[in-house]
Amino acid sequence: MTDSRSYIDAELPRFREELFDFLRIPSVSARSEHDDDTRAAAGWLADRLRDAGLDAEIFETGGHPVVLGEWRKAGPDAPTILIYGHYDVQPVEPLDEWDSEPFEADVRDGRIYARGSADDKGQLFMHVKALEAELRGGAGGLPVNVIVLAEGEEEVGSPNLLPFVREHRERLACDGVVISDSAMFAPGLPSLLFSLRGLAYFELGVTGPDGDLHSGSYGGAIVNPATALARIVASLHDEENRVAIPGFYDNVVEWDPETRRAIAELPFDDEAYREGLGPPALGGEIGFSTLERLWIRPTCEVNGLLSGYTGEGAKTVLPARSMAKVSFRLVPDQRPERVGRLLRDHVRKVAPAGVEVEVTELHGGRPWKADLEGPLFDAAKRALERAFGTEPVLTGEGGSIPIVVEFEEILRAPCLLMGFALPGANMHAPNEWLPVENFETGIEALALLYEELGDSA
Amino acid sequence: MTDSRSYIDAELPRFREELFDFLRIPSVSARSEHDDDTRAAAGWLADRLRDAGLDAEIFETGGHPVVLGEWRKAGPDAPTILIYGHYDVQPVEPLDEWDSEPFEADVRDGRIYARGSADDKGQLFMHVKALEAELRGGAGGLPVNVIVLAEGEEEVGSPNLLPFVREHRERLACDGVVISDSAMFAPGLPSLLFSLRGLAYFELGVTGPDGDLHSGSYGGAIVNPATALARIVASLHDEENRVAIPGFYDNVVEWDPETRRAIAELPFDDEAYREGLGPPALGGEIGFSTLERLWIRPTCEVNGLLSGYTGEGAKTVLPARSMAKVSFRLVPDQRPERVGRLLRDHVRKVAPAGVEVEVTELHGGRPWKADLEGPLFDAAKRALERAFGTEPVLTGEGGSIPIVVEFEEILRAPCLLMGFALPGANMHAPNEWLPVENFETGIEALALLYEELGDSA
Repeated sequence: MTDSRSYIDAELPRFREELFDFLRIPSVSARSEHDDDTRAAAGWLADRLRDAGLDAEIFETGGHPVVLGEWRKAGPDAPTILIYGHYDVQPVEPLDEWDSEPFEADVRDGRIYARGSADDKGQLFMHVKALEAELRGGAGGLPVNVIVLAEGEEEVGSPNLLPFVREHRERLACDGVVISDSAMFAPGLPSLLFSLRGLAYFELGVTGPDGDLHSGSYGGAIVNPATALARIVASLHDEENRVAIPGFYDNVVEWDPETRRAIAELPFDDEAYREGLGPPALGGEIGFSTLERLWIRPTCEVNGLLSGYTGEGAKTVLPARSMAKVSFRLVPDQRPERVGRLLRDHVRKVAPAGVEVEVTELHGGRPWKADLEGPLFDAAKRALERAFGTEPVLTGEGGSIPIVVEFEEILRAPCLLMGFALPGANMHAPNEWLPVENFETGIEALALLYEELGDSA
Repeated sequence: MTDSRSYIDAELPRFREELFDFLRIPSVSARSEHDDDTRAAAGWLADRLRDAGLDAEIFETGGHPVVLGEWRKAGPDAPTILIYGHYDVQPVEPLDEWDSEPFEADVRDGRIYARGSADDKGQLFMHVKALEAELRGGAGGLPVNVIVLAEGEEEVGSPNLLPFVREHRERLACDGVVISDSAMFAPGLPSLLFSLRGLAYFELGVTGPDGDLHSGSYGGAIVNPATALARIVASLHDEENRVAIPGFYDNVVEWDPETRRAIAELPFDDEAYREGLGPPALGGEIGFSTLERLWIRPTCEVNGLLSGYTGEGAKTVLPARSMAKVSFRLVPDQRPERVGRLLRDHVRKVAPAGVEVEVTELHGGRPWKADLEGPLFDAAKRALERAFGTEPVLTGEGGSIPIVVEFEEILRAPCLLMGFALPGANMHAPNEWLPVENFETGIEALALLYEELGDSA
């Protein structure tokens, strides 16, 4: 490691400039006007994989391409790890809430601010640089074979990744999958994930009259699609902030007492958490702590609302339609398909006559529970402790990486989620950031992980 | 009348071209980027008043100017009528729902399609042309003095008109006020209004965290401002579609049985009405007919909703804020100020902890009941019957013209509301229209009204 560490130390200024180049490409997968940018990000990534000493190939899909990097010189008897990440990013709106340009990295207060710095370009790039340090640095090789699999559609539900993984399952065969797309529990406290929540994301569309109407001349005799939508959305929770869709909790498993105890023992302060985020009070499902609400309990969130006139001043319009984006975070053993069916049934029941309601599924993914035993997990614990100087903690994650469950099923290999962002990283929000320190120490930790994996094989 | 009728018949092609010029000016009072256009519309109108034979003056206000036209040659002993209208128009969004350009009049199927054709540029312009026919036509004068008062802020709640009317109350002294800003009950069936609903329009703003958050990483522990807004909005109605704000109905007067009988006798078909507007069913407050719901019962309507991500695809955001535009239509003797207080109290009570809610009043106006006796009303009945060949019916109007009550109080003169649009005119919506036939016959009816007023004096 001494060789790769000194290589990293020497090359960090270049790594940083390269990262900024990567972040500069607005690879917003959800927006078709950015299709060329998203493709450019794939090409840029393939070039950097080649620079690092891997073979790289770009695969066309029905959507944005898949980038595959490979280094197999450890030989057929050595273990193989697959590193998964994504080079696409979330949209950047609302633009006026960014303190610097979303696609122009700005380093302030020890943080790299840019869309994708944490989710996931920055963390994917850390793997590429850790590999470069091992393969181009003094060691000149690795004790494990490495596959890097990067997609450009994670932020839109990975519609083409699974077919790709299935089609290439032999080429992608591996002994473990490493993903860095999450956060450490606190600064200086490296973390490994024990769970991810699943996702079921829908758009509710309500339509009433053929066109917008004057709210005075017609109000009172026409069912207002915005009012109807509000009533439907309000019916999704009960007074105790539980999801009020019949059957929603049927498949939620009780978490084991040890995990709940470990969660309770983590250094966490509700008031500091609230203050960091700004709302006048925290909230959520009655009977659970904040971390439990975030990690081991399912939710229903409204992600967007739109209807009628939303500009300056008053327009007396009775809107013809209304729209809500509504998503659920799922925990084991909930399934997005079942939640979709329950939602449709519920909406059909509560929707008033006089409007038509359409429920469109936008994307979904199953929840995940980690396998906390085995050489991959052990190697990660040692690597993190060596790099950060402290033993990692186990944490949950409220967000979703739908592909994790699928990887484990198709590749029959455990997934390891070790991330280097920090809480409050503004993934999916304005002013996304990654700590400079974690970017640097994280590259070392990843290099150490590859080495440790060789030792434990 | 023969002289003015032949003048109208001869000049109609020019009247039409002039109307199209008027409609071409995008005088959207709610949008500051159209301030110059709104001012241009005032100037254009003053020029046409002068062409018609009136003196015209433009008065600056704190907002858009007031245009005042005067013809006082009937002498101090003749009655004076004041014609009120407005030259500003509603915003035109959503633009893609217009079948022709909003500010370029398009005549299709006997209708003049353009923003402002019905509300109220088209109808105000009809008065100007009726006056021109009387003053420039064979008669060369009128038996009544005439004041034309046109404002440019009706669509934003007339903030500067009342101060103007108060300041100039002696100059504006009159025996009756005529307003053409409403619709006839049906084609060929001229109508006079017995009531207008009042208006109380608010914006509800809900704020939670300081910025948008990732709905996975934070969902469950933070009160979602979009969910909170939906629950607040849903609480505004009960299961029977009555407004559920405590005290809301306290000041609603029972309407007299004759009026309710007259309403019931009007030729009206629920199914045809529903089919014309397009919703799968009609709705509204239990226990009242459609016309009663529209004319003599108060309502609460959502005019707009906005929160979070509303673009293409799925963005997993927990929004920092949400907004609803909510307006109430009021009936005698409800007052907008009191409704505002009740709404604030209610919202304070139902808003969950974890968010802050702000209620902003955007505008308001009291409801109105017509004085159905006296020379003004009688003259209007005769004029409409002569022009349209059939006796006018009495109708209510669900919309609001807040200034009507105020005119009656300040000027101590009755208001007469005779309009020439038709139901479904899309005032405040895309594809606003005015029937060509009503534009033409209406100018004659208005000319006859001025003549009849002289007879009854």
